[in-house]
Amino acid sequence: MSIDFFEKHRAMLEQAVAATAARGYWSPFAESPSPRAYGETASQDGLRAFEAHRGSEFALDQSGANSTVGGEVSPFGFELGVRYPHTPAGTLVRQSEQALQTWRTAGPRAWVGVALEILARLNRHSFEMAYAVQHTTGQSFMMAFQAGGPHAQDRGVEAVAYAWHEMSRIPDQVLWEKPQGKRDPIRMEKTFTIVPRGVGLAMGCSTFPTWNSYPGLFASLATGNTVIVKPHPAAILPLAITVRLARQVLAEAGFDPDVVLLAAHQAGDDTAQALALDPAVALIDFTGSTAHGDWLEQHARQAQVYTEKAGVNQVVIDSVDDFKSVARNLAFSFALYSGQMCTAPQNVYVARDGIQTAQGRLSFDEVAQGLADAVEKLMSDPAAAVEITGAVQNGATLERIVQARALGLPILCDSRALAHPQFGDARVQTPLLLKAHADTPEIFREWFGPVVFIVATESLAASIALARRVVRQHGALTLSGYTTSDSVAGELRDAAQRAGVSLSLNLTGAVFINQTAAFSDFHGTGANPAANAALSDAAYVANRFRVVQTRWHA
Amino acid sequence: MSIDFFEKHRAMLEQAVAATAARGYWSPFAESPSPRAYGETASQDGLRAFEAHRGSEFALDQSGANSTVGGEVSPFGFELGVRYPHTPAGTLVRQSEQALQTWRTAGPRAWVGVALEILARLNRHSFEMAYAVQHTTGQSFMMAFQAGGPHAQDRGVEAVAYAWHEMSRIPDQVLWEKPQGKRDPIRMEKTFTIVPRGVGLAMGCSTFPTWNSYPGLFASLATGNTVIVKPHPAAILPLAITVRLARQVLAEAGFDPDVVLLAAHQAGDDTAQALALDPAVALIDFTGSTAHGDWLEQHARQAQVYTEKAGVNQVVIDSVDDFKSVARNLAFSFALYSGQMCTAPQNVYVARDGIQTAQGRLSFDEVAQGLADAVEKLMSDPAAAVEITGAVQNGATLERIVQARALGLPILCDSRALAHPQFGDARVQTPLLLKAHADTPEIFREWFGPVVFIVATESLAASIALARRVVRQHGALTLSGYTTSDSVAGELRDAAQRAGVSLSLNLTGAVFINQTAAFSDFHGTGANPAANAALSDAAYVANRFRVVQTRWHA
Repeated sequence: MSIDFFEKHRAMLEQAVAATAARGYWSPFAESPSPRAYGETASQDGLRAFEAHRGSEFALDQSGANSTVGGEVSPFGFELGVRYPHTPAGTLVRQSEQALQTWRTAGPRAWVGVALEILARLNRHSFEMAYAVQHTTGQSFMMAFQAGGPHAQDRGVEAVAYAWHEMSRIPDQVLWEKPQGKRDPIRMEKTFTIVPRGVGLAMGCSTFPTWNSYPGLFASLATGNTVIVKPHPAAILPLAITVRLARQVLAEAGFDPDVVLLAAHQAGDDTAQALALDPAVALIDFTGSTAHGDWLEQHARQAQVYTEKAGVNQVVIDSVDDFKSVARNLAFSFALYSGQMCTAPQNVYVARDGIQTAQGRLSFDEVAQGLADAVEKLMSDPAAAVEITGAVQNGATLERIVQARALGLPILCDSRALAHPQFGDARVQTPLLLKAHADTPEIFREWFGPVVFIVATESLAASIALARRVVRQHGALTLSGYTTSDSVAGELRDAAQRAGVSLSLNLTGAVFINQTAAFSDFHGTGANPAANAALSDAAYVANRFRVVQTRWHA
Repeated sequence: MSIDFFEKHRAMLEQAVAATAARGYWSPFAESPSPRAYGETASQDGLRAFEAHRGSEFALDQSGANSTVGGEVSPFGFELGVRYPHTPAGTLVRQSEQALQTWRTAGPRAWVGVALEILARLNRHSFEMAYAVQHTTGQSFMMAFQAGGPHAQDRGVEAVAYAWHEMSRIPDQVLWEKPQGKRDPIRMEKTFTIVPRGVGLAMGCSTFPTWNSYPGLFASLATGNTVIVKPHPAAILPLAITVRLARQVLAEAGFDPDVVLLAAHQAGDDTAQALALDPAVALIDFTGSTAHGDWLEQHARQAQVYTEKAGVNQVVIDSVDDFKSVARNLAFSFALYSGQMCTAPQNVYVARDGIQTAQGRLSFDEVAQGLADAVEKLMSDPAAAVEITGAVQNGATLERIVQARALGLPILCDSRALAHPQFGDARVQTPLLLKAHADTPEIFREWFGPVVFIVATESLAASIALARRVVRQHGALTLSGYTTSDSVAGELRDAAQRAGVSLSLNLTGAVFINQTAAFSDFHGTGANPAANAALSDAAYVANRFRVVQTRWHA
């Protein structure tokens, strides 16, 4: 290729590879939307770019489209009115297969270089992306900027770093020389060529269209596969912007831009199934419901399928130093993006005889009410509260709040609508906290959204056993524990390790259970039903390529 | 543990890890059955140990057995008469789960140390193993020693090296320190714990009971899983010896010996299915028929399933310098262990207008007859020939020769029985070479055994296209090409890379297409239907363990 993107990004790549092993704090991108990092006009430019998308046809030089689709509505209360080219699934796969013919021979340096250049350009479009993510997902602007921009790009770089680390261990060519005693050794030349699996399919979700799609998209791309990006019909714009930038970089590098294709489609049509079952589709990355994820694992047998599905995240409270800081931290986690994060806590277990604190014992009801009070306090100033909650992405989640309220469980604090100072029609809801028991059947399934159960259990041991059982049976991305006892901390760690879920202990400050940091925190373990893979690790990348060798006498 | 097996083998492990990246020649074990390497009495001791097994109960301190099974018959013509304890599948899985409770917490150093000590002890039992492999598989003594002993042990060490490489990249504990501008950084302590998948199941085959089982067995063991070893009912002894040694090492290291269990069973019972479908079985390694492998992939959905199944290995002859050396090399490959290697060539493609040689053009018929003549010459001295062919493992393979002969295709050289100078009742057969066309339907399936089709094609291009199609549709472990042209070599490489099969070019000397060397040659690519994994690579080990992290404020 004319531009050596690999050399351009080599230093960053080497740091990224080192970071995946060191697992301390590292990021190549600024997470603050500050002019110092992104330029004085970046914010205005991004808003202008977003506004230009509204009500227009999204320009994408992608052939084969036979109609347009669209219909995204901002959870903040207006229609986006963007129309995207729609290409039939079969056409997309044939185009992707065609692009694969040359892309597959370009080799790891080219694949990785192109992937990193796309990510670097995405970083420069972080403000445009922030508005696109905000007005498809309902995230507040700050979350949309960080999670939709630099943090998503981090996860992309992380996947590329893992891919490069694994690929670069395979030598191109070696001399194999086997001693034969006093006779001459046998000498063979051997080449090892990394070949991709084939066509990849990255299926986005409506709440984190970039953050959850970039690991799979870039892991597949960096290992020589082509990728069809299929956004959720409610959150197309962030991935359309991504695909457009990817295609520009591919073209500049001298490759067929169809290496990355957009599969925009209408909700309820059969695009997802048709793509997933095509015999040429060899890799599928999916984030979404358990039903859809299970369907893919069951039916898309021709492909390697990586899924992140539903889970029930839990908190076990045993004992605390300062209950107020615990309640503040948890209230923030309940409210953050209205519980629409796959890492958000849902079930909080407290023994029915209460908890020990530095200020004395608190009864179960005092703990439950204390958590509710902390939520009410956090939500008391609507202008500040909406920057935490964002808006509810879709009507099904609103409906779920109504259903939860109607369960008949005692209401600790009710979910109520908040007026958004900037967007009058925004769907903003505060968290609903309900009181429950360990045998309340509703706690054994995911209530995606701002619904939290404060659950009375028989004892600490019962809380831990319940947490472990729920992880094994229903899956979880996070487990949170509060204890002042080292031995209880040990029990929680043992339970987490046996159940296969990440554990956070005693979060009371500026870190929340909902958050994971690329290059340090594995997102998901791949060891419980919530996800069959972790973002990112060696297992996530190593089977996206294969090695074909040739040998001959030297 | 009292004995630090990890430190004992650390230097060897580090060399092994380096060898997997360098991929030149390396082995920790002597492949020659010489007294210098194994001791003056090793051969006699091994024979004595083998003879002691015959007609006796195999002593295994494994509880839960409720009967004995056995019935192995040497392909060299006598009953082994060994009886093995038989434990019901459900009991085995419960015992394995029980052993997992402590084994899982021992950590990578302990897992890897124990695995390497088992392999080192197996090496010291290589003569006993050689006789056990010879008289279950029908391999000649020399092959049984090498493939059943040091070469199998190499593949075990290789899998352990990959496992260690991947696990050792994960730090135990790190400090994560995120800058906060002028404020104090956020500091989190994070631990990362490697946890196993659960209970592993290693399913052996009747032709290479150790070589094909050790990679999966040791990959699972070295990543903290327990392993139930289920031998093929016709080749139990080699894996029973393996399990006994493994249990001794585990006990010495202070672990529950049930970390490795033997599942000896009767042919035709439901042990394999019951084990494979048990919800606790999380990893399955299988070598055998496509029907059984496909069944496992389809039904054992709770497990990661690694399979090596049937394939159709092919040779494309375009042009040669010296046809006689080509014919000698291929004749040896046809005859070696009577085609009962998963890497043995079956279909040889020659354009109908013949091939170019340094001595002028040879017609298709001259090539076909030349190959047949080379086979006849190689088989002309029965005493030497039987050391190449070994014996036919089972009656189904004998029957397959009869079926192939009855196809009505022109016979280039017939398979005939050879008298074995040492074993009067040995089932020894020379290769059957048949003349076929590119549209002969029988060439599109595996004829496991000494059956070879010399296939006339329209042209070199047709040969390459046919080879590529057969690999994609029916799978293959090897592809062999002969050409004096660099451009044809390039075409063959391109076809091999697109079809996903290893290529050997112009083998005329002491290296045969059937052979792969650990630490250098990947056995299988995982990229065509013959196998869904390669022995060994990162993908083969990285998903046998998961990482569970714990984080807290520093």
